[in-house]
Amino acid sequence: MVSTVKLAVIPGDGIGPEVVGEALKALDAATAGTEVAFERTHFSLGAARYLETGDVLTDDDLDAIKGHDAILLGAVGGVPGDPRLAGANIERGLLLKLRFELDHYVNLRPSVLYPGVASPLANPGDVDFVVVREGTEGPYVGNGGAIRVGTPAEVANEVSVNTAYGVERVVRYAFAAASARPKRRLTLVHKTNVLVFAGSLWKRQVDAVAAEFPDVAVDYLHVDAATIFLVTDPARFDVIVTDNLFGDILTDLAGAISGGIGLAASGNINPDGRFPSMFEPVHGSAPDIAGTGIADPTAAILSVALLLDHLGHAGPADRVRQAVAADIADRGDARRSTSEIGDAIAARIGA
Amino acid sequence: MVSTVKLAVIPGDGIGPEVVGEALKALDAATAGTEVAFERTHFSLGAARYLETGDVLTDDDLDAIKGHDAILLGAVGGVPGDPRLAGANIERGLLLKLRFELDHYVNLRPSVLYPGVASPLANPGDVDFVVVREGTEGPYVGNGGAIRVGTPAEVANEVSVNTAYGVERVVRYAFAAASARPKRRLTLVHKTNVLVFAGSLWKRQVDAVAAEFPDVAVDYLHVDAATIFLVTDPARFDVIVTDNLFGDILTDLAGAISGGIGLAASGNINPDGRFPSMFEPVHGSAPDIAGTGIADPTAAILSVALLLDHLGHAGPADRVRQAVAADIADRGDARRSTSEIGDAIAARIGA
Ligand SMILES: CC(C)[C@H](C(=O)O)[C@@H](O)C(=O)O
Ligand SMILES: CC(C)[C@H](C(=O)O)[C@@H](O)C(=O)O
Repeated sequence: MVSTVKLAVIPGDGIGPEVVGEALKALDAATAGTEVAFERTHFSLGAARYLETGDVLTDDDLDAIKGHDAILLGAVGGVPGDPRLAGANIERGLLLKLRFELDHYVNLRPSVLYPGVASPLANPGDVDFVVVREGTEGPYVGNGGAIRVGTPAEVANEVSVNTAYGVERVVRYAFAAASARPKRRLTLVHKTNVLVFAGSLWKRQVDAVAAEFPDVAVDYLHVDAATIFLVTDPARFDVIVTDNLFGDILTDLAGAISGGIGLAASGNINPDGRFPSMFEPVHGSAPDIAGTGIADPTAAILSVALLLDHLGHAGPADRVRQAVAADIADRGDARRSTSEIGDAIAARIGA
Repeated sequence: MVSTVKLAVIPGDGIGPEVVGEALKALDAATAGTEVAFERTHFSLGAARYLETGDVLTDDDLDAIKGHDAILLGAVGGVPGDPRLAGANIERGLLLKLRFELDHYVNLRPSVLYPGVASPLANPGDVDFVVVREGTEGPYVGNGGAIRVGTPAEVANEVSVNTAYGVERVVRYAFAAASARPKRRLTLVHKTNVLVFAGSLWKRQVDAVAAEFPDVAVDYLHVDAATIFLVTDPARFDVIVTDNLFGDILTDLAGAISGGIGLAASGNINPDGRFPSMFEPVHGSAPDIAGTGIADPTAAILSVALLLDHLGHAGPADRVRQAVAADIADRGDARRSTSEIGDAIAARIGA
C-alpha cells in the first residue's frame, strides 16, 4: 500500500526554484518504487510574489501550508537594496514567520566534510557534527522597538526572549540526538558570562536534562570560543545546542569549513508533529547568480535527505546521502551546471 | 624634557601577571632614552582579590584608576566552575564595569597575519584588518531580567540597547580609521534583516557618516556571512565596524585565523580622553596553564604597542611591532618560556 505525503513546495526567489527543481528530482529517484508517494502543491511566495501582489504571506497561504505534511523551501529574498522591497522584510515576514507560526523549535543543521571536498581549513580533520539551533525564541522574536527615530536622541532596543518551556524542549531534542550518535557529546554554546539571565536559564536546562542522559558527555563553550574551535579543531564537536542567533552565526561558519554553504542542508522541525516541518538549504536566494545555471543544488538535495529522515524513511534518506557523497568524491575541476549536478545525483540514487 | 605617563597596571588572574610582566619589559625597552617615562601603579584586582577580600571593584578602586593616563590589563577570571566564585561575575563586575565606567566606546582589535605564523586556514592570503567593536552598548548593557526563575514558567530576557549617540561616535571613529589606512574600506557587520530596529539605526548612522568620508568604500555584511568570509577570504577586510556582541564573536574568530588568540591585542579606548583607555590581550586568564611558564606574552606585548600608539608615541609603538614581527619570523619549533619570549622581544626592541 502506498502512503501519500502532502508536500508543500516553496521554490522562492533567485536560485531557489533552480535548486528545488533538482531536489525534487532526487526525491523522485529516492522514492520511486517505494511505499511512499509525494503529492506536491506549489506555493508561489517570496520577493517576486510580493512585487506582483503586495502580499508576503497571507493567512490563507499559511492555512493552506498547514494542511501539508512537510515543506520543501528553496530560498527567499530579492536583490539586496531593491527599493521596491524597502517596505517589506521578506526574511521576517515569510521565512521567520513560517518558522514561528509552525513552531519549528528545532533548526537542525548537520555539518559533514565529505571526502573529496576542499575545506578552507588546512587540517580540518574529521568534521561530522550537528547544530541544534533553537528556532522560536531568542533575539529572533521580533520584540524590539525604537523611539525618536532619525533624531540624535534615537534609542533602538532588541529583546531576546528565552523561556524554560522553549529552552527545555530544544535541549531535550539535542540530548536525544547526541545519545543516538556514536560520539555522544553535547556542547552548549552561549555567552553566560555576559548574557547572565538567558545564559543561566540555558545552563540550568542543560544541567537538568543531562541527568536523564547519563551516556552523553556535556561541555560548555562561550560563543566566541566556539568560533575558534570551529576553525582549529572542528572534529571535537558532535552535537552543539544553542540559541537562535548564535546558531545562525555558527552554522554559516560550520558550512564554510565543511565545503561551503553550497552543501549545507537544514531542517526546521516541529518535533511534536502538530505542524509541518520545513526543509531548506542554508544558503540564500543569491540573486547575483540566479538564471546562470551555476548554483549548486547539493544543499537542497541534502535537505531532501533530512526531509525523508524526518518522515521516517531512513532508507531513501541514506540513498540520497550516499549518492551525494559519491558525486562529490568524483567531482573534479569540471564545472557542471545546476541540472547536470542534479541529474548526476538523481541517476546515482536510482542506480 | 621627560613627560610622565601615569600607568595603572592590572595584572589580574592566571597567566595575566605572567604576560603583563613581559609586556612591561617591552614597554621599558621601547621607551628607554625617549622623552616619555611611565610611572606605574599596581592594582590587585580579579578573582584572587575577590576570594581574599570579597571585593570585585570598589568605588575607591575605580576612582584611583580614573586618576591614571592609561591602563594595562593582563586577564581576569578564576577557574571556571569554582564554587567560591559562584556569587561573583568577575567578567561583568570588573572587566565590563571598567569598559562601561571608563566609557571605552571603541574596542579596537587589529588582526595581522605576521609572516612565519601558521594559520589554520589553507590559503589565508594577506590578513590585515581591524575590528572596531562598540564597547558600551548592545546586548552587553546588562539590561536583562528573569521571572519565575527555576520554575517551568521561567522567562529570561536580555535587552540590546543601541543609541544614535553611541552608534554614531563609534562609526565615526571607524571611518576615520579606515580613511587613514591604505585600503580605505569599511564593512558594517550586523543582522539588519532580523534585528530590524538596531540594524536600521546602525545602517543609517553608517550611511550618514559615509557622506563625510567619500574616500572610504563602504559595504555591509550580515554577521553570519561575515564569519564565512573570515575563513574563505579574510584579505577582503580592512576596517570592520560592529556592535559589542558581534564584535566579541568576530574578533575571537579573527584571532584564530591570524595565528591564534596568543597574538591578538586589543585596546579599550575612550577617544575623548575623558577617561584612561585600557589595553589588554584578547585572551583570558587561562588558569589551566597558569604558572607553567608556557603562556605566550606576545598578545600582551602587542597591546603595549596599541597603548603607545594611543598616547601618540608612534615610533616606540612601531619598534615594538617590528620586534614582535622579527621574533615571530624567527620562531622555529623550539618551545620557549613566557619570559624567554619576552626577553627576546625586549632585546630586539632595544637593539
Ligand atoms: C535569512 C535569515 C533570516 C536566516 C536566519 O537568520 O535565520 C538565515 O540566515 C538562516 O540562517 O536561515
Ligand atoms: C570576558 C568577556 C566578558 C569578554 C567579552 O565578552 O567582551 C571577552 O570575551 C573579550 O572579548 O574581551
